[in-house]
Amino acid sequence: MEQHEKSSLPGKVYLVGAGPGDPGLITVRGKYLLEKAEVVVYDYLASKKLLRHVPKDTKLIFAGKRGHCKHTFAQEEINQMLVNYAKEGKNVVRLKGGDPFIFGRGGEEVQELFKAGVHFEVVPGVTSATAAATYAGIPITHRSHTASVAFLTGHEDPAKENSNIDWEKLATGVGTIVVYMGIKNLPVIMENLIRYGRDPKTPVAVVRWASTPEQRSVVGTVETIADIVAKAGITPPSLIIIGDVVKLKEVTDWYEKRPLFGKKIVVTRTREQASDLMAGLEEHGANCIEYSTIHIAPVESYEVLDSELERLTEYHWIVFTSLNGVKYFFERLHHLGMDARDLKGPDIAAVGKSTADLLLQYGVRADLIPTVFTGEGLAETLLDQCIRIPLPRDAKKPCVKILQPGLIW
Amino acid sequence: MEQHEKSSLPGKVYLVGAGPGDPGLITVRGKYLLEKAEVVVYDYLASKKLLRHVPKDTKLIFAGKRGHCKHTFAQEEINQMLVNYAKEGKNVVRLKGGDPFIFGRGGEEVQELFKAGVHFEVVPGVTSATAAATYAGIPITHRSHTASVAFLTGHEDPAKENSNIDWEKLATGVGTIVVYMGIKNLPVIMENLIRYGRDPKTPVAVVRWASTPEQRSVVGTVETIADIVAKAGITPPSLIIIGDVVKLKEVTDWYEKRPLFGKKIVVTRTREQASDLMAGLEEHGANCIEYSTIHIAPVESYEVLDSELERLTEYHWIVFTSLNGVKYFFERLHHLGMDARDLKGPDIAAVGKSTADLLLQYGVRADLIPTVFTGEGLAETLLDQCIRIPLPRDAKKPCVKILQPGLIW
Repeated sequence: MEQHEKSSLPGKVYLVGAGPGDPGLITVRGKYLLEKAEVVVYDYLASKKLLRHVPKDTKLIFAGKRGHCKHTFAQEEINQMLVNYAKEGKNVVRLKGGDPFIFGRGGEEVQELFKAGVHFEVVPGVTSATAAATYAGIPITHRSHTASVAFLTGHEDPAKENSNIDWEKLATGVGTIVVYMGIKNLPVIMENLIRYGRDPKTPVAVVRWASTPEQRSVVGTVETIADIVAKAGITPPSLIIIGDVVKLKEVTDWYEKRPLFGKKIVVTRTREQASDLMAGLEEHGANCIEYSTIHIAPVESYEVLDSELERLTEYHWIVFTSLNGVKYFFERLHHLGMDARDLKGPDIAAVGKSTADLLLQYGVRADLIPTVFTGEGLAETLLDQCIRIPLPRDAKKPCVKILQPGLIW
Repeated sequence: MEQHEKSSLPGKVYLVGAGPGDPGLITVRGKYLLEKAEVVVYDYLASKKLLRHVPKDTKLIFAGKRGHCKHTFAQEEINQMLVNYAKEGKNVVRLKGGDPFIFGRGGEEVQELFKAGVHFEVVPGVTSATAAATYAGIPITHRSHTASVAFLTGHEDPAKENSNIDWEKLATGVGTIVVYMGIKNLPVIMENLIRYGRDPKTPVAVVRWASTPEQRSVVGTVETIADIVAKAGITPPSLIIIGDVVKLKEVTDWYEKRPLFGKKIVVTRTREQASDLMAGLEEHGANCIEYSTIHIAPVESYEVLDSELERLTEYHWIVFTSLNGVKYFFERLHHLGMDARDLKGPDIAAVGKSTADLLLQYGVRADLIPTVFTGEGLAETLLDQCIRIPLPRDAKKPCVKILQPGLIW
């Protein structure tokens, strides 16, 4: 017998830029690929919320790598993982903070994939420099100020003889300079700028945890910023933005100025129900913490429910008082091989419009929605209606019966 | 009587980076805002597909601005429009190619909004430099090659005395240089680089229409690229990428190497049905043109259908042969105040799994799905079943009747 590959389709590796922190800054393509991924190998991310896009049975591998922290995997091990999973036929997303090709070591990973004959795609992301500037309210370029910007890494020892960074030319060669990973070397970087002729009064901003609810920014000049940062206790991860454009921050700031910025708000609804509320609060700058105090779980025994489901047509009314009620009711109905057709007979009431909308998704147009969207409002409307119902010939028919109160519906 | 504002809620302007061309490169936040927008003021965009995210009743305003073309609106007029719509209480999206704050004049627009007291938010986008490099298969930075990159504009006359660009320092001051809007001045830019000491053998790539199906890239060196571009007839919009990292293109190229890259494929299905097919083709690099040759329209008269819908329970079988059939059937059923419950009685067949899935969304679990997913397959299975159905007592009951063949279902 011949040996067969695990999968006949070749796997592929998608290097996806996750963006800088705000989970809304991943690209539409990046999100789509996460939703289809079978394996996700992710770096330290500013927002874990991105991993919510991944299907439940996807393998999630934390590759580590954060600034000066201990690496969980060596780069060689990461490369090998990507190759191996792709060769198994898997759809692999390699999720990297910011943009994969700007200080992201994406080039090295792609070289290894090429060598191994693995197909790949690279999805750019919003790089941290752009996000840090934008969320600190600083236009990176501006017609009245500069037509050039440079992005550098600042983590190497600036005192070393053969620096990768040509401070002599860069100090005055570009209008705006954004330094990645430079906060530890901030004093030396500023000294270099002054030594090579940059005006010491040039404004400088330092932005920590850019584009996250924890963002903090301080402003000074080339000669003052190191002291300001030291006093403020600002540590990595931070970006340094140097140039006249920093002056515009006073005018163009918007993120930290939002009315709820810096406020933590705990949202206790279930995740499915919290999203609209959270979107509204986050629009105004709030840092929403999801902490559901309700856990919706199936009942322990379906015995009572099932026997009632089988004699549904004996009821005059079926009343749905919540989205969860609708969901679990129809899940069970379908489980028993039944569907909306089997609800022929009773009238159906929904406590409010959203419950009625969900009912419609299961095929049922609510016969009654009360004008007041509460359980009480529904009960009143229903009592009115009940009076008009002729008494059943079979007097044993229950007019109202509450099914399985342990299940919230 | 007092005068009232049109809306009591203050409007807001969202400056949204559309990304460079590939409509999948807009951020999730940007797409969300387009979906909520009441007014969209958009620049010349590489992909009009982005405007599909906008609701139907949203006001779309083309602001013009493309390279050297005539501006449709002056910048001052654009600023004023944004202010006016926001003051009317509107949710305004200002959609800009690439990133709003990198050579996008976003800073100027935001300054005017601030002056006018209008709330705003800025959503970064993937800037063209990143996308051009990535989609040309060039890592902008790479540990073995460079730790710095500069983005410049190249549209000013490089011969002018007080250039905004300090070519003397920049020529050798950074590892990678990406020039926006520089194609017309390419020969002079290359001369400047050589004059100020950049190695004439440094590789250079020029990428036109980056991240679109029309993308084209050529590679040369500082001393040869101007000739290569002239011979290839490459014109704006193009980006120039200069630096050792261009060497990696041989290895890290992926976009133009996809098997269907450069192939135009016309997809004739309706938009609702084309998306899966197109996603698959585009994954392999195809340029899909949507050109629907089918138009699904409601029938002219519902008379026959309605009378049949009212006596549905007389049928033994209701057979759904397409997604559109399911959709229009239930739309009409709901229109008549009926729902899935009114299908109690007949058995229901679906021609295939996707038709059955859609039925479930209307509340019906198909009683029969043939093993062969075609009309013929269904007819055969149904004939088998029909034989087992006892003849109706009322001999006038039709066994098979085709409703409204003008409607495709």
